[in-house]
Amino acid sequence: MVKTTRGGTVSIAKPVNDDRARNTRATLDRLHALVAADLQAVNRVILERMHSPVALIPQLAGHIIASGGKRIRPMLTLIAARLCGYRGRRHVDLAACVEFIHTATLLHDDVVDESDLRRGSATANALWGNKASVLVGDFLFSRSFRLMVEDGSLKVLDILADASSVIAEGEVLQLTTANDVGTDEEAYMAVISAKTAKLFAAACRLGAVVADRPAAEESALQSYGQNLGIAFQLVDDALDYSAREVELGKRVGDDFRDGKITLPVVLAYRRGNEDERRFWRRTLEDRDQDNHDLAEAIRLLNAHGALGNTVDRARHYAAVARDALAIFEDGEPKNALSELLDFVVERAH
Amino acid sequence: MVKTTRGGTVSIAKPVNDDRARNTRATLDRLHALVAADLQAVNRVILERMHSPVALIPQLAGHIIASGGKRIRPMLTLIAARLCGYRGRRHVDLAACVEFIHTATLLHDDVVDESDLRRGSATANALWGNKASVLVGDFLFSRSFRLMVEDGSLKVLDILADASSVIAEGEVLQLTTANDVGTDEEAYMAVISAKTAKLFAAACRLGAVVADRPAAEESALQSYGQNLGIAFQLVDDALDYSAREVELGKRVGDDFRDGKITLPVVLAYRRGNEDERRFWRRTLEDRDQDNHDLAEAIRLLNAHGALGNTVDRARHYAAVARDALAIFEDGEPKNALSELLDFVVERAH
Repeated sequence: MVKTTRGGTVSIAKPVNDDRARNTRATLDRLHALVAADLQAVNRVILERMHSPVALIPQLAGHIIASGGKRIRPMLTLIAARLCGYRGRRHVDLAACVEFIHTATLLHDDVVDESDLRRGSATANALWGNKASVLVGDFLFSRSFRLMVEDGSLKVLDILADASSVIAEGEVLQLTTANDVGTDEEAYMAVISAKTAKLFAAACRLGAVVADRPAAEESALQSYGQNLGIAFQLVDDALDYSAREVELGKRVGDDFRDGKITLPVVLAYRRGNEDERRFWRRTLEDRDQDNHDLAEAIRLLNAHGALGNTVDRARHYAAVARDALAIFEDGEPKNALSELLDFVVERAH
Repeated sequence: MVKTTRGGTVSIAKPVNDDRARNTRATLDRLHALVAADLQAVNRVILERMHSPVALIPQLAGHIIASGGKRIRPMLTLIAARLCGYRGRRHVDLAACVEFIHTATLLHDDVVDESDLRRGSATANALWGNKASVLVGDFLFSRSFRLMVEDGSLKVLDILADASSVIAEGEVLQLTTANDVGTDEEAYMAVISAKTAKLFAAACRLGAVVADRPAAEESALQSYGQNLGIAFQLVDDALDYSAREVELGKRVGDDFRDGKITLPVVLAYRRGNEDERRFWRRTLEDRDQDNHDLAEAIRLLNAHGALGNTVDRARHYAAVARDALAIFEDGEPKNALSELLDFVVERAH
């Protein structure tokens, strides 16, 4: 086991297990390979559908869509459809739908967060400004809407309309809790269940819907997606205070600088003494931060086991997700969904 | 004829014909009265559907939806359905859909324009900030989407998905032309045809769709709506340089202060000499304005007949809209749509 120590932009050094990092990346590559042809078809649909005579649209949308991303959400639709024995092509268009909704949400989040770095490159917002992010996000959402209507299934429309509504409500809910460091775990979980996990759930459920499978399978895939989504977000929250920039394309401390209240903070705040709570209120509520504060935040999070416990919580949801898959036959697609759970949790190490 | 002179907040005095103002308002009241019960039902649907346990949503959405507005778009769906002999209740939900889409667009426009006053009250943005405007706009759009899916007609979904897509593209197109005072009339018309008129067209067409009328009637109502929408926007553009604040709930010069390129400016710029063009570039492209510039802008617009000619253009579209109605039987609904054209153009006086 080789251990290296490398500093992020904020000089927070953290030991990293390179073998593990390689393994998690290998997992993701294997999942991509399983649905490689379909994923390429999804990318083609995305490119076709973001075309517009208004040049700014493909420029900006291309920037955010092409800038990588792990394509986890569309991959879920593709693998879930495969798991359900689906042989048609509707899952490709619907996977593109899901990615468009996700991208529209990212663009609108950019307006909100003023984050400078997402997926390792400058955000669309930093390059084109607020206006463009809002309007191109709307454009992508409308394209997603068109794709669903072309698919022609009211059931699919119902699932995605419901998801959109819940996601939007979750975003507003987050906004209203965003500046309150005393947010409790319950309230935080409500936010990420809506804002992040709902789209994962819908993406998975669509696989069963296109394959016309019984309600139990729809429900199982929905549950898998929902719990995977929560685990994914929780690990992301922990990584924001521990990831290596090179590896994850995100800077350590983005959430901290944006004053975002995430589960590690919720836990550390509740477990902290009055001095520590004052620290969190100053840095996150008042956004009054100096150069040493991120290091202090990380020290407090570790002192209270808040990062480790956040990952423990994620592990719980991953376990629930795994059991949701029990009703499906063993095979490559089921293994892939199971490996994805490992990937999501192992990223944290 | 009583003439009064009254200054707006920017001390631009303009003679106003009060009798005419009273007449146009009376027209609008008569139109509302024609579909009063349906409009009340629309308002109930709107209130129900913007309910959310997340308190900020009804607060903010209520602010913008309740703050009045003329409800012209939902009224169009209601009257068009009546014109087509429709007797059901789908038109009520779809009219609410249309108003939600309109409101979502307004909220997203607020992010863009930083306008301080819309419909005579502070914009949602000024009170709640950019974030809230974007996210509550998304929420309203998702609610509209849900309503359409509940309606259950793929044809309706297709019309509204198409409209959303065109509107979003129009918004981005406007963004890319927004800072170019040399925008030509053709390009400007493309923007407002997409951004404003498309929703008017869809709102009207839905009336024929719910009533299951032949394609010719759908097409006629779509054309009526499209042309009415263009006329409406052009008159709005002219009013921005001539309206009384009290009467229209908008300040004179909002577009000017926001650096918006509208048809009056397009015309005055093309007709102006080099000094004048420099003036427009400085004030609108560079947004370098002093207290006397709005008065000078209005002087130049009038000197070149740009405001009058913008209203002339609007009259042309109103005439086309009127002829689109020819295939329908005479009666109250047809008269109402015809009077609405008068209202839209007469507002300019």
